[in-house]
This record gives sequence, C-alpha cells and structure tokens, in this order.
Amino acid sequence: SVNPDLASERQTASFSVEKLTAWLDGGVELTRIRRAVVEAIECDPVFSRENQYFQSQNERYEAAVRKAVHLQKKMHEMGWTEDGPEFKYIYRALSGDIAFLLHRIFMRSISVLGSDKQIAKWIPLASQFQLIGSYAQTELGHGTYLQGLETTAVFDIATQEFILNTPKISAMKWWPGDMGRSATHTVVFAQLYIHGKCYGMHPFIVQIRSLQDHSLCPGIIAGDIGPKMSFEHIDNGYLMLQNVRVPRENMLNKFCEVQPDGTYARRGSQQINYFTMTTVRISLISDEVIIPLMKACTIAVRYSVVRRQSKLKPGEEEAKILDYQTQQEKLLPQLAAAYAFHFINNYLQELFEKGYREVQRKNFDTLPELHAFSSGFKAMVSQYCTSAVEICLRACGGHGYSLLSGLPSLYTKILASCIYEGENTVLLLQAARFLNKCFVAASAGRPVPPSVTYLAAVKPGKCPANNKSDFLSPDIYTEAYQHTAVRLVSSTAAKLQDLIQSGVKKHDAWNQCTVQLVQAAKAHCHYITVKNFAETVEKLETEAGIQKVMKHLCDLFALHGIFSNAGVFLHDGYISGAQMDMVTASYLDLLAVIRNDAVPLVDAFDFTDKNLNSALGSYDGQVYQRLYEWAQKSPTNTQVNPAYEKYLKPLLHNMRSKI
Amino acid sequence: SVNPDLASERQTASFSVEKLTAWLDGGVELTRIRRAVVEAIECDPVFSRENQYFQSQNERYEAAVRKAVHLQKKMHEMGWTEDGPEFKYIYRALSGDIAFLLHRIFMRSISVLGSDKQIAKWIPLASQFQLIGSYAQTELGHGTYLQGLETTAVFDIATQEFILNTPKISAMKWWPGDMGRSATHTVVFAQLYIHGKCYGMHPFIVQIRSLQDHSLCPGIIAGDIGPKMSFEHIDNGYLMLQNVRVPRENMLNKFCEVQPDGTYARRGSQQINYFTMTTVRISLISDEVIIPLMKACTIAVRYSVVRRQSKLKPGEEEAKILDYQTQQEKLLPQLAAAYAFHFINNYLQELFEKGYREVQRKNFDTLPELHAFSSGFKAMVSQYCTSAVEICLRACGGHGYSLLSGLPSLYTKILASCIYEGENTVLLLQAARFLNKCFVAASAGRPVPPSVTYLAAVKPGKCPANNKSDFLSPDIYTEAYQHTAVRLVSSTAAKLQDLIQSGVKKHDAWNQCTVQLVQAAKAHCHYITVKNFAETVEKLETEAGIQKVMKHLCDLFALHGIFSNAGVFLHDGYISGAQMDMVTASYLDLLAVIRNDAVPLVDAFDFTDKNLNSALGSYDGQVYQRLYEWAQKSPTNTQVNPAYEKYLKPLLHNMRSKI
Repeated sequence: SVNPDLASERQTASFSVEKLTAWLDGGVELTRIRRAVVEAIECDPVFSRENQYFQSQNERYEAAVRKAVHLQKKMHEMGWTEDGPEFKYIYRALSGDIAFLLHRIFMRSISVLGSDKQIAKWIPLASQFQLIGSYAQTELGHGTYLQGLETTAVFDIATQEFILNTPKISAMKWWPGDMGRSATHTVVFAQLYIHGKCYGMHPFIVQIRSLQDHSLCPGIIAGDIGPKMSFEHIDNGYLMLQNVRVPRENMLNKFCEVQPDGTYARRGSQQINYFTMTTVRISLISDEVIIPLMKACTIAVRYSVVRRQSKLKPGEEEAKILDYQTQQEKLLPQLAAAYAFHFINNYLQELFEKGYREVQRKNFDTLPELHAFSSGFKAMVSQYCTSAVEICLRACGGHGYSLLSGLPSLYTKILASCIYEGENTVLLLQAARFLNKCFVAASAGRPVPPSVTYLAAVKPGKCPANNKSDFLSPDIYTEAYQHTAVRLVSSTAAKLQDLIQSGVKKHDAWNQCTVQLVQAAKAHCHYITVKNFAETVEKLETEAGIQKVMKHLCDLFALHGIFSNAGVFLHDGYISGAQMDMVTASYLDLLAVIRNDAVPLVDAFDFTDKNLNSALGSYDGQVYQRLYEWAQKSPTNTQVNPAYEKYLKPLLHNMRSKI
Repeated sequence: SVNPDLASERQTASFSVEKLTAWLDGGVELTRIRRAVVEAIECDPVFSRENQYFQSQNERYEAAVRKAVHLQKKMHEMGWTEDGPEFKYIYRALSGDIAFLLHRIFMRSISVLGSDKQIAKWIPLASQFQLIGSYAQTELGHGTYLQGLETTAVFDIATQEFILNTPKISAMKWWPGDMGRSATHTVVFAQLYIHGKCYGMHPFIVQIRSLQDHSLCPGIIAGDIGPKMSFEHIDNGYLMLQNVRVPRENMLNKFCEVQPDGTYARRGSQQINYFTMTTVRISLISDEVIIPLMKACTIAVRYSVVRRQSKLKPGEEEAKILDYQTQQEKLLPQLAAAYAFHFINNYLQELFEKGYREVQRKNFDTLPELHAFSSGFKAMVSQYCTSAVEICLRACGGHGYSLLSGLPSLYTKILASCIYEGENTVLLLQAARFLNKCFVAASAGRPVPPSVTYLAAVKPGKCPANNKSDFLSPDIYTEAYQHTAVRLVSSTAAKLQDLIQSGVKKHDAWNQCTVQLVQAAKAHCHYITVKNFAETVEKLETEAGIQKVMKHLCDLFALHGIFSNAGVFLHDGYISGAQMDMVTASYLDLLAVIRNDAVPLVDAFDFTDKNLNSALGSYDGQVYQRLYEWAQKSPTNTQVNPAYEKYLKPLLHNMRSKI
C-alpha cells in the first residue's frame, strides 16, 4: 500500500504524468519500448542489483562479468540488436552495472582508426567475444595531456615488429577498464620510434593474456589498481610492457603507416579522431550524469513528503519536510536542473547528428564549434549535476547517508564524471579558448559560428524589469544571461590583451586569466541552457498543464542561477540591487508553486523501484519498513559477530570475574 | 629518497616550519607530547591502518573493537590518563578509527543526568568495562526534533518498574553507535507516561544484551543498520523494545524523579543539558572537521608539486600542476580556510571554557549566545570544510578518486559532520533566530551580548578602497564583512516584520524567510571568522616570516570569500563593480605569492605518513611507486579471479571452439 502522505501528493497533480513521460521519451512508442526492455531486464534474476550495497569489490566484479556474458544471450533471446531501438535502454535498465564496456571502446577504436583489413580481422573476433578487449591510453603519470604519454613502440626492421616498453613507472598504463582482470587484448597508445626518431602517439593492438588459460603473456605485468570511490564492478587495471613484440600489422593504420623499410607515411585527416572523443563526451551526459540526477531527485522528493519532522505551527501535526522553504530551496532547483539538462541534451544530440552528417560529407568546418560545445557542456553539466546529487543526499539527512538510500552510490559514481573523458577545468578552458577566439573575430567583424554570434552584440544597457513578475518573462532573464556571458567573455579578452600589451608573455598571460576564463565558459553554457529551455517550453505543443509546469521549471532554473550567482549579474549594474530583490522574491514564490507538483514531476521520470534501488525512494513511500527490512540482509547481521569470541567475550568475562 | 620536485619546494620556505608547528600546537612542549603519543600509537601494530582501504564492514568493525580493547592496556602501559595532556592526542593519532566512542557518551550522559547514587553505581562499572554502553536517542522517524520521539516508558506502580515499548516502526531507535553488535547497556530516551499522562522525553538505562553470552535480552530486538557512506568500523544499530521492564531506579533522575506513588517531581534547571550538547558540537569541530581538511590539503598540495602535466610554455618541460592558476585557485583558499578555522576553533574553545566557568557559578546568562555560536559555527565550518575536502579530492584528478589517495574516505567521513549533532540547516536557523532577536533588541537600544553589538551599527556607507592594495588591509575587508552581515540580518528582520504586519501568520512568515535567514547566519559566522583571523595575525608574536605568511593567508581567506560571494557585497553598492575588480586582482595576486610557501604550510600541520594513510600525500612524494605498491595488496590482486572459472573460461573456450 502506498504511504498516504505520498498518495495525496499524486491526487493533486496539475498535469498528466503519463503524457509528460511520453513527451520526455520522445513519444508513446518509445515509452513502450523502454518499458519492455526494463521489464525484460528486471524479471531476470541474473541482472538483479538486490544485494549490491553489501558486496565486496570481488563480488561486484564477478556479478558484472556474469551480467555481461548473460546479456549476449538475453539480447539474442529477445531479438534486440545493437542498431535496434531497444539497445539504448539496456544500459539504463542495468544502471551501468555491467562489465566489458571497454570492450566496446576497443571495437570502436579499431573501427575508426583501423584499416579495412584490420577491421575485417579484429571486429568479427571481438564481436563474437573470441577475445576481450580494453583500451590502454591513460598512464600513471599522464591523463589529459596525451602528448606526454611515455610508453614507447620502437620499430625493428629486422623482424618487422614493434617493441613496446614501459620505460619508467610513470609510464605504466593505469585506469583502463576491463584490463585489470578480464581483457585478453588491448589497444595500447605509445610513442612511435623509427630509427631513433619519435613520430608521436600511435595505437597498437597488443595481446596481454592467453586465450588458453588467461595467464599473462610474456613481458606483460598487469593487475587491478585496487579500490576506488565507486565502480567496484569494473576491473580498472595497470599494465607494464617489457620488450613486448607485436607484428607491424598491429599498428592501427588508417591514417598513417610504417612501411617495411621503416618509411613513415601519414594519410588522410586526423581531425575525425577528435570527433570520436567529442561524441563520447556528449553520449555520456545523458546516461552518466542526467539520469543519476533524475534518480536522486526522485528519491529525495518522495522521501521529503513521507518524512515529517518538527512543526510549522504549534499544535498542528509535524510537517512534511518538503513544506519547509529551506528544503524546497535545496531540492526544487535540482529538479528544474534535471529537466533543463534533459532538454540541452536533446539539443546537443541533434547538433551532433547534424555535425556527423557534415563530417561524413568531408565538411569539417563545424568541428571546432562541436569540440567547444562538447567540452564546455560535459564540464558544466557534470559539475552542476554532481553538486545537485550531493545536495539531494544531504537533504535526506542521516538516512540519505545510508548506502541503502541509493544516494551515496549515485554521488560517488557521478563524481567521476567530473574527471574522466577530460578533466573539467581543462575542458572549460578549451571552451574558453574557442569563445575568446570567436569574440576577437566577431569584434573585428569576421564571421563566427551561429551559436556564438551573440558575442558580437556587446552593449552596456540595463535590465528593463520593473517588478518581480517581469522576471517571469523568458526574454528578461535570457537577456540577462546573455549580457553576463558577453561581459565575462569580453572582459577576459580585454584583460588578456592588456597583459600581453604590457609585456607579459602570451602563455603567462593566458595562465593569469584562467580563473576568469573558466567563469566565462560556464556563463556561456549556462546562457545556452536557459535559452534552450525557454525555447523548448515555447515550442511545446501538449496539454496546457504540462506547458504551465514546464514554464515554472524554466523560470525556476533561470532565477535560481541568477540568485546563486548574483555577483556576475550585479557587477556592472545590469541588474540593480532592487531588481535582485525582485529576482529573489519571484524565485522564492516559485518554490512554493512547484512544490505542489514535485512528486508528479519526479514520477514522470518513470524509474522502477528496482532501477532506483533505494529504500527511501520507492513508489510506495514505505521508507521505514524498507530500511529495516534491507538492513536485515546486511552481512553485519547475517554473519557471526567477528569481534565477539576474540575481544568482547574476554573483555566482559575478565571484568565479570573481578566483581 | 624525497622526490626532487617536492624537495625543492621545501628549500625555499620563507619561514621555519618547526616554529609554525609549535605555534599551532600551542607551544613546543605540546608538540613534544603530541609527537610522543603519535609515535607510541604508530609503532604498535594493533593500531595499524595499513590495509584499511581493502577491508569489509565486518573486518573494519572487528579491528575497531580490537583497538578499543587494546587502547585500555596501552594507556595503562604508557601512563596516559583521561585527564592527562596526552589524552586529546590519542583520537587524532588513531584517526578516529576505534570502537566504543558511544560508551563514552553513555558515561557522560549518566554523569550529567544521573543522581549521585546512579553515578556511584554505573560509572565504576562502565569505566572498568563491566558493561559496554551506548546512547539511544535518534529514531527511524525522528532525529533533530527530539520532542517528536515516539518510544514510550510507562510507569507501573504495582511493580515499581517502567515498561518500555517501541509502539510503531518509526519509533525504532536507529543510528546509535556501538549498539548494533557491541553494547550490553544503553541509555534510551523515551516519552514518560504516568497514569496515562505524558511527561515528555526522559532517559532510562536499559540492558540489551546478556553479560554472560551476549545474547539479546528478552523483549529486545537489535542489530546493525547496514552499510553507510563511511564509518564502516562503527556498528550503528537499531533497537526495538517490547514490554521491556526496568526498575524505577533506572530513570536518570538528577533533574526529575518519579516517586513510588507515581508522583512526578521536577527539580533543578534543565538548561545545563543543552550546554552539554553545545560543548559536544564545539569539540567535534577540531577532530572531525578541521583536521580532515588539514589532511586533505596536505595530500593535495604535495601531490600538486609532484604531478607534472602539460606545458605552461612550449618547449619547456611539463609544469607542476600547482603552477597553474586554476589549481592554485582550487587548493590555496582551502589551505587558508584550514588555518582560519584552526584559529576560530581556538577562539570557540576559550569562549566555552569561560562559559563553563560561569555555568559552574550558576550564571546561565551566556547560554543563549553560546548555543547560537555552537550551532552556527558547527554548521558553517562543517559545510565549508566538506566542500573544501571535495575540492581537494577533485583537484587530484583520477588518482584522487582512488581510495588509496586517502581523499575519498576523508570526504565521506567529513560529509557526515554536516548531518550529525544537529542538521546544518536547522542549526543555522537557530543561530539566525538568535541574531534576529539581538538585532531587534539592539535596534530598540536594549543591551545585547558583546559578540553581536556590531548589529547595532547599521550604516549604509561605501567601501573606501581606492586600489587593489587597499584590499590587503584587514580593516577594509573586515568592515566589508561586517557591513554585509548587518545588511543581511537587518533586511531579513525587516522582511519578517513586513510579512507579519501584512497579516501573514508569524510561523508562516518565519518559514518564508528561512532561505535568507540561513544566508544571514552564515554571513555572521564568516564575519567573525575573518575578524578573528585578522586579530590573531595582529597579536602574533613570532618570527617575521611566519607573521608575513599568516597575513597573506588571512588576506586570501577574506578576499576569496568576497570573490566567491560577490553578490552579497555588491548588492547595496557597498562594494562597487570597479572595487570588485580590485578584489579579484588582489586575490589572484595572492595565489601566486602563497603558492611558493604551499608545501611548508602543509608540512607545518605535521601529519605522519601513517596518519595520512595516502599514496599521494606522503612526505617523500613517491606517489607513483606507492600507488603501484599499495595496489598489489588489494584482494582483487591477492585473490583468485572469481569470474574466471565460471564465466570467462567458458566464454573464451566456447568461442575458441567455433574458430
């Protein structure tokens, strides 16, 4: 039975949850397919995550491998294919809790970087799991700065082989998934040397474990890098190479080749490589960042209407904690952000599909813009959502801190998204470099990509709002965001210019501006997100109730951003102190309005209880019962007290004998 | 051997690290005692934390009990006593990784709430470990709001007993440490009923496990609440009571008593109870909040001069990451905060010792101020330091995410300090209530406690700074913080007044102001922290080098706060946009200055390698070697691959046979 406090929240929904779900999915047919996939996965005990919070790293790894192996069978049974509509829902249904994800990257890198001959040889082997692949790029001493990788591959003309080595400890491959205990093969990135000359980083296919008995191949030292903050199910590994020889054919050679006599030939464009990395960054935003935030919001909002604590008015019963303004202010902006980022993700997906079509036509013009977008948004969205999940966790008090709430594991996993696939600060600086370049071009009247033409419109001006309701106008707040983004980009460009003109060397000047450049890049992404949300709401053709509540969320997202970054809007007086008070008033009013639809708004994300795996967030709101039941299954209760015989018994006995 | 990149940082220190350490400790004699305790603990293998990152919850618990039992012996051996100077260093040396901390709270609650007779009976038993105590206050359904606790204790005149019950699932005791698997006795807080009338919450001593065989007593259901984000070594427990009878003498009755005929008598003041909670909050700030931040800074700063990545200038070698402005901006403000909070902690300790002396003289006048201070600072410092530790973790990139860095466990543990001993938002609102009351009193010309007399000085005014160096004047920035605190407190008071006058009911009006009240309380604490830092530096009598670098840190802490909360300073024009640019310029300049002393400044915290337990943070900076060595000890490397026989072998075999 559903907790009555939670049930009552659903009775007063101002819109149809089912219609909102369908709209978020992109249509009822996709909702149907998604649910069918979820159901098929969840009814299969192999995919159960029931005891996950009690498992050791070894147990999690074993379960993840088991799931990966079983998934092949399941897909075959269900008739799901990699290019079918079901495929993209599988990972979501599994909550990413599966091994061999790097096997997929191994295949992708061969498809993109390998010659037709190499593809013909390796892809069938890999797709039938005749080997298990990994991708060995990052080293102990080098992550983001790929040029600095230290692994070497020396061409030996005599034997027509490359000799791979790990010349020092910092050159050890470190972090690659599936490599610590599973992979038989990996793509190793190494500095290519021919006749003593270095030709830079190249990819080589290297076998690391025997297909017969899985033992390490000669010259290979490999293992697991040990416990991490999350990803217990993944065997992130290390790899040292000692004079490991691979045939000349094992260098992936679509774009460059070493000929038998040692001649190095480069061919084609390498730009397309960057495009692959770019698309990976975009594709992770949804699965690894936005969905975890949606889950965290679902858990925290549902719990906040079940949990009653203290009294709003003396004599009344204790209040639902979501009725406190401070709780609304913690959770509802995160809920609005989850919607905002869902929409910006749709926008980015479209942009990249268009970009991909252009690239296939050999038009590489949009690559710099796409690179800047993927860098900036990956960083901005992952950082925002990581903070948001942490806020949801803390908003659930002590129970949020229990692993059984599901929130700690969401947090520790999303946190990694700020680091992998490009460290966020580095990515924001790449976006800033693009913005700076475009600003300089636009100022000089040169053409710039459509997404940044706004940078040319530098005008001082003042915000025209006269009262708090003016701030519910998307034109008013979008304009404010735009103004602020332009101001930050332009003032940083000016500072950079000034420093250089005053004699500071270009690279030092850049370094001295980086704190502000990061700010400017974030402001740009924030502006685009607000603008896109407002446009999405405007274009929305659906029932009035949905449009209305989406408009509220859009307003909330925008005003929350102004309220919590007040300094950048007040700085040049574009928004005055009196106007900031109006922003605050409108913002706080909105909290009370959206609070009424908070539960339907998280219900619309349509997560099953099994998918949430949270004692606090289930659909029925029986949180205390579930916490108690789940705790019973903990090894701390099912196993004998390990301290009793050795320490507690002697202690108590010893003392009793003294009485 | 020390990594040369780290060694070179120490050669250029602008002050004596040893002298700074002694000053932080409060004198060379205390440094000597602290080091002696640390050495004695660390040379004892029972206290080793070497394999901690690989252990399960059961293993951690067993080790913590073992340490607790061994500590008694050790103290006896070493001649350490609970009131000796060594005692306060033991917990720090153990990094809190020990069981039976609640046993101490059990004893404290009896000492404070029990009659002389109860103290005479129970304290000797407890101090000789003839029982293991716990403290059962929090319930599944109630934490911060103690009045709402649902456990009942009904007085039975016939038998002269109290009958304790858990009437519903939400009334189950949940979270008490040492209760899940260890405790034999606990203090249970329950609603007292006599003749059907409720007399509110009272404490009762209840035996829950047999002293003979440790089995649960009749009517007791208890166990462990399962895995949490940290505190694996503590058996946080649950407890249900089913008609559990305890004799009348088991109600702690210093302040109230149930007489044999059922007459209820209250005596003395209960205010002193709150004072106990207040002191607990203050005492946790140092051990649980500031020390973890100091450790995180030590790890991140040392790693940031060993790690080299990318190039600042083309053609040069790769740069230490601490030479990037963005990395300085991440870490150095956190380092300054660690110092700022160390000093505010000294200030609070003094304040509370003075307060305690007054209370002993039956003068309770300062209790409201002390309560507000303990609430506000516990919340503000724990929240600030939690964010700071997270920043340190993220600043170390992928390696910071490995448990072996030590940073994840520092983060997951400090995060709990935002929740326990009063949820931070609730605490900030209690501080805000005090500030609001004082502001109203001060405005009406009534006297207010010395710490808040500044609230009477409401003057509009403008910041007098004319150039960026003016912002290195403590008067200038302290005044700015004061102005802002007054403005936030007064504008919230005005809003509250306006709402009430416009007819909104008092409690609704309060709720509608809480987001801003929280802001005001934080601004007050921030102001006091800056002021105290500036005063500490001014009074400092030591070598010039230390005074100079402390002044830089104080400036950095203050300007970082203005830079990152620009909105509240710009709002009424006290600081103009042009002045904010000066703040930014001074702030960024300071980063480059303090960067040069960053390593000596963390060395001065004087943590041993064993205490840090970090592969990234050791004194010698051999980070890659240590990551590799430590990973070898992981069960994922020392145990057989659990997936091989069952899943990997059949997979590869099956596929091979198809070739």
